[in-house]
Amino acid sequence: MGLYGAIEAGGTKFLCAVGTGPEDLRAVTRIPTTTPEETMERVIAFFQNFHSTLQAIGIGAFGPLDLNPNSPTFGTIPTTPKPGWSGANLLKPLQDVFHVPVHLETDVNAAALGEGRWGAARGLETFVYLTVGTGIGGGAVIHGRLLHGALHPEMGHIRIPHDWGRDPFPGICPFHGDCLEGLASGPALEARWGQPPESLPWDHPAWDLEAEYLALGLQSILCILAPERIILGGGVMENRSLFPRIRQRVKELLNRYLPIPALQGDLEDYIVPPALGERAGLLGALALAIGETD
Amino acid sequence: MGLYGAIEAGGTKFLCAVGTGPEDLRAVTRIPTTTPEETMERVIAFFQNFHSTLQAIGIGAFGPLDLNPNSPTFGTIPTTPKPGWSGANLLKPLQDVFHVPVHLETDVNAAALGEGRWGAARGLETFVYLTVGTGIGGGAVIHGRLLHGALHPEMGHIRIPHDWGRDPFPGICPFHGDCLEGLASGPALEARWGQPPESLPWDHPAWDLEAEYLALGLQSILCILAPERIILGGGVMENRSLFPRIRQRVKELLNRYLPIPALQGDLEDYIVPPALGERAGLLGALALAIGETD
Repeated sequence: MGLYGAIEAGGTKFLCAVGTGPEDLRAVTRIPTTTPEETMERVIAFFQNFHSTLQAIGIGAFGPLDLNPNSPTFGTIPTTPKPGWSGANLLKPLQDVFHVPVHLETDVNAAALGEGRWGAARGLETFVYLTVGTGIGGGAVIHGRLLHGALHPEMGHIRIPHDWGRDPFPGICPFHGDCLEGLASGPALEARWGQPPESLPWDHPAWDLEAEYLALGLQSILCILAPERIILGGGVMENRSLFPRIRQRVKELLNRYLPIPALQGDLEDYIVPPALGERAGLLGALALAIGETD
Repeated sequence: MGLYGAIEAGGTKFLCAVGTGPEDLRAVTRIPTTTPEETMERVIAFFQNFHSTLQAIGIGAFGPLDLNPNSPTFGTIPTTPKPGWSGANLLKPLQDVFHVPVHLETDVNAAALGEGRWGAARGLETFVYLTVGTGIGGGAVIHGRLLHGALHPEMGHIRIPHDWGRDPFPGICPFHGDCLEGLASGPALEARWGQPPESLPWDHPAWDLEAEYLALGLQSILCILAPERIILGGGVMENRSLFPRIRQRVKELLNRYLPIPALQGDLEDYIVPPALGERAGLLGALALAIGETD
């Protein structure tokens, strides 16, 4: 039986693995993100150890990404604040060496796929994975397929109500100021409260405000996609007390409007943490390599 | 060749037709919406004239609707402010008489399907139809299929920023107050300005505010679904001066964030009116009868 390659491509590190599933990861390595050339060279060197048995490679990457196969810049990161990486091609260096299918997705789309195959969304057709960390990003599986319209989703950049009286913080998104990511990402929390989120005590007012913003964002996701479940991952969600607060605010905000059976209870099975934990990204890339449907 | 039946089921009238397409509508009738029993009886009487050649029937209906085939109340309108219609079954009376497939969808989902088959979204895989009228509702086609998650979308009920200084109007949604529908539907315009939208001159400040709210809502739809095109229909959009205003505000709000080629220009091909005009609903139901894929 062949092996699959997985790459979780992030701004600080590339995690690479080969295997066939969560219980069968044969090798894992961590490569620091330096220049595109050096980083990709080390990635290739890792996978060359498995060249003969590699069936496919999946990459879940930070974005935005050009995922349009008809585009001349397909497979690249068109623009990113990460120095040296604007225009970097993630697909081609691998395709040139390994003559196997190489699948590229946003990190959150890949994580959604992994949670669908092995984790918190097993058996569901339509669900969302939202990460709340350095940024806020969402991936969606719709009718069993990753959502791609004109682009992958950029759910962190939706606008939500911002009560300036309660929260005079202007937001930190360089493009939109107080979009969801600008108000509720980890760096937004740190900028607003003067300390990183992991150092804020769970009874700090930061968390009720955070739950409010995330609940407002989830209302939009709910009304637009009507997913069967929403998985919330990322560093900020490590504060597990956010889950009951968010569930309660979503209930209150929706005010019994949507007649979805899953929304009738306390939402414990509707708004959930990832089941794959910190390996969600890497296993998502592995799920991507294995394929959406088999 | 067989004929298809179409029903645009609205709160004031049921429009029914038989035919095969926009250029071939053999008969159309208008039935006032009274009680469910009387209305459905008259609908059935109309289609009985074509009983022998009828291949299938499509219904685009006001909602919310129970579209889950595994639900005991499948095919009903679970709750509606429309007197007598809560719990009414739209599917069963037709299935009992006509032994052909009967397909039920929300009016906006049906309209989306019609625009995809014959109208403003021909050839597209992923697009949104948003109606701005008595209410605000959205239908989405994703990868060629109507979006159904745990429920059909309820896009009118997303939350958007509400600048109370500029607009102290509290919104009219009985569930959410100042959600998108509460702030920007036709009745919201009428309640805020004291006159129906069609009587407001095009240079009235109402329209810049309306464009602002719709643009804020579209930003959420764009970031969550990344559709290839957005069609804006409904009575309020009859004021065609809204289109350039909305396009401009969407450009400004997105602030060049999304690298979608279709968003680089003036959005004239991205945010568009329906091509099927006031027959969008009826033709959508016809498209539904014909089927999504053939």
